[in-house]
Amino acid sequence: MFSRIAIIGAGHIGASITRATAEALPDVQVALYDQSPDVRARAKEIGLGVIVDAPEEAVRDADLVILAVPVGAMGPAAQGIADAMKPGAVLSDVGSVKASVVAAVKPRADAFFVPGHPLAGTEQSGPDAGLAHLFHNRWMIVTPLNDPRPEYQEAVAALSAFWRALGARVEVMDAARHDVVLAVVSHLPHLIAYNIVAMAEDLEAVTESEVVKYSASGFRDFTRIAASDPIMWRDVFLNNREAVLEMLGFFTEGLTELQRAIRLGDGAKLQEIFTRARRVRREVIEAGQDSPAPNWGREN
Amino acid sequence: MFSRIAIIGAGHIGASITRATAEALPDVQVALYDQSPDVRARAKEIGLGVIVDAPEEAVRDADLVILAVPVGAMGPAAQGIADAMKPGAVLSDVGSVKASVVAAVKPRADAFFVPGHPLAGTEQSGPDAGLAHLFHNRWMIVTPLNDPRPEYQEAVAALSAFWRALGARVEVMDAARHDVVLAVVSHLPHLIAYNIVAMAEDLEAVTESEVVKYSASGFRDFTRIAASDPIMWRDVFLNNREAVLEMLGFFTEGLTELQRAIRLGDGAKLQEIFTRARRVRREVIEAGQDSPAPNWGREN
Repeated sequence: MFSRIAIIGAGHIGASITRATAEALPDVQVALYDQSPDVRARAKEIGLGVIVDAPEEAVRDADLVILAVPVGAMGPAAQGIADAMKPGAVLSDVGSVKASVVAAVKPRADAFFVPGHPLAGTEQSGPDAGLAHLFHNRWMIVTPLNDPRPEYQEAVAALSAFWRALGARVEVMDAARHDVVLAVVSHLPHLIAYNIVAMAEDLEAVTESEVVKYSASGFRDFTRIAASDPIMWRDVFLNNREAVLEMLGFFTEGLTELQRAIRLGDGAKLQEIFTRARRVRREVIEAGQDSPAPNWGREN
Repeated sequence: MFSRIAIIGAGHIGASITRATAEALPDVQVALYDQSPDVRARAKEIGLGVIVDAPEEAVRDADLVILAVPVGAMGPAAQGIADAMKPGAVLSDVGSVKASVVAAVKPRADAFFVPGHPLAGTEQSGPDAGLAHLFHNRWMIVTPLNDPRPEYQEAVAALSAFWRALGARVEVMDAARHDVVLAVVSHLPHLIAYNIVAMAEDLEAVTESEVVKYSASGFRDFTRIAASDPIMWRDVFLNNREAVLEMLGFFTEGLTELQRAIRLGDGAKLQEIFTRARRVRREVIEAGQDSPAPNWGREN
């Protein structure tokens, strides 16, 4: 598959790939680079593996280079390593948006660029948040280019095999479709969570400390989602604008319908909509996408 | 405190009070009634305690009667037991809205009505969802009436002591203020979760099965909240209309601001709002209202 891997970016995902590779593929050598000296120092401190001080040094001998930086930084990150990369190496990424990354990343002519997105991650950030099990049973979506070279399909197969070795389930998808699907299942939920949580400090009738004090009634679940890295998410919204705005339109229409039902006292309409939502929950649990334990098994 | 308690409604909360009382106050006798024969049968089957077939029978000897029915059913439930209640007994409830319950419940002249709302509950419903630990370290908000009788304060104190015995932390609050605070921390979050989950089946660009398949990317967390009892929540929105519409106004304004920032590519604005939201998460964790474990400690 690959014997040497370079990871550019030692945040939550880069650190998790490093830990997962060390666990699942102990013979594979991983070199890790991050543009922040503080992050590199911290990564060394916690023994994350081979941390190098220049991106060229990380990629020089690597058969696979994975860009694990915010979506808006993918283009510059790829450019910074293009000359130093080993001829014929595979280049990949983990960005949450794919079409804009495909447009921004200009790989060297002899490289094989296979974009990808592991649907995994917690609300935590930085090298300390590296989790070896992060990709277990999670989807890895690969969005191959229309690259006619025969070796390109081998590169796709090798990258897929690598992610399967880390425990992921690999799916191939068109980049544009990926961006629409993710707008619904991930980007819009995060936007809504950010919005309701940020709202807490603007209220006049209720203080922020009251919101925090009684947050276990529902609000706190949004705060977890809204704790995700602000720069990563800024870039997601800037780079998946059309799909997010489209889904936001659907969301707002639905919310306006609910608002009107509340204003007019239309209990039948409310009950019908709420009952539909409950059915979707059952499907999520049946699909093995969440635990049926109440409150995710937490006691309170 | 109380030696005999009657609980009207054997759903998630009624069943949890029964289980919690059996654990914390084993000498207290609890009689449970539910208007649904199926629920009563199921409650008997799982050994929930003394299940009676008529509300009058449950309340006849009770020093404390707790109404644990949907908010819209509180008035009729109180009326149905008024004549049968023991003279001078304490009447309470667990409704998620307080002002409308205070207006709807007409207690007998010799009864002491002390409205309350335990801020506890999972997304599950019915007698099987009764959890003895549900109220541990959770807030119980008591909203006393302006009742001038000297024994009324004793009734408030006795009810508070009962909930403390079940593990709750008791707060006294004005009913109207309760309804505004809960609109923010609980009602609005539930409405939003219902909306985004119900939206899944209306989309054209993405199928519902795709949403379910990739739901772990964020969407699934909303499905948990949206799995709560539709009738209970219908009644919440019908009975806390003004406060919910007010908070919905704030939410929509914030969302419009985010939408505009996405459309105009205003990354600085997005980053600023997302960073604020992260700070609120830290406060929630510092206040002990949620676990700092990533993903609530779940592996995926």
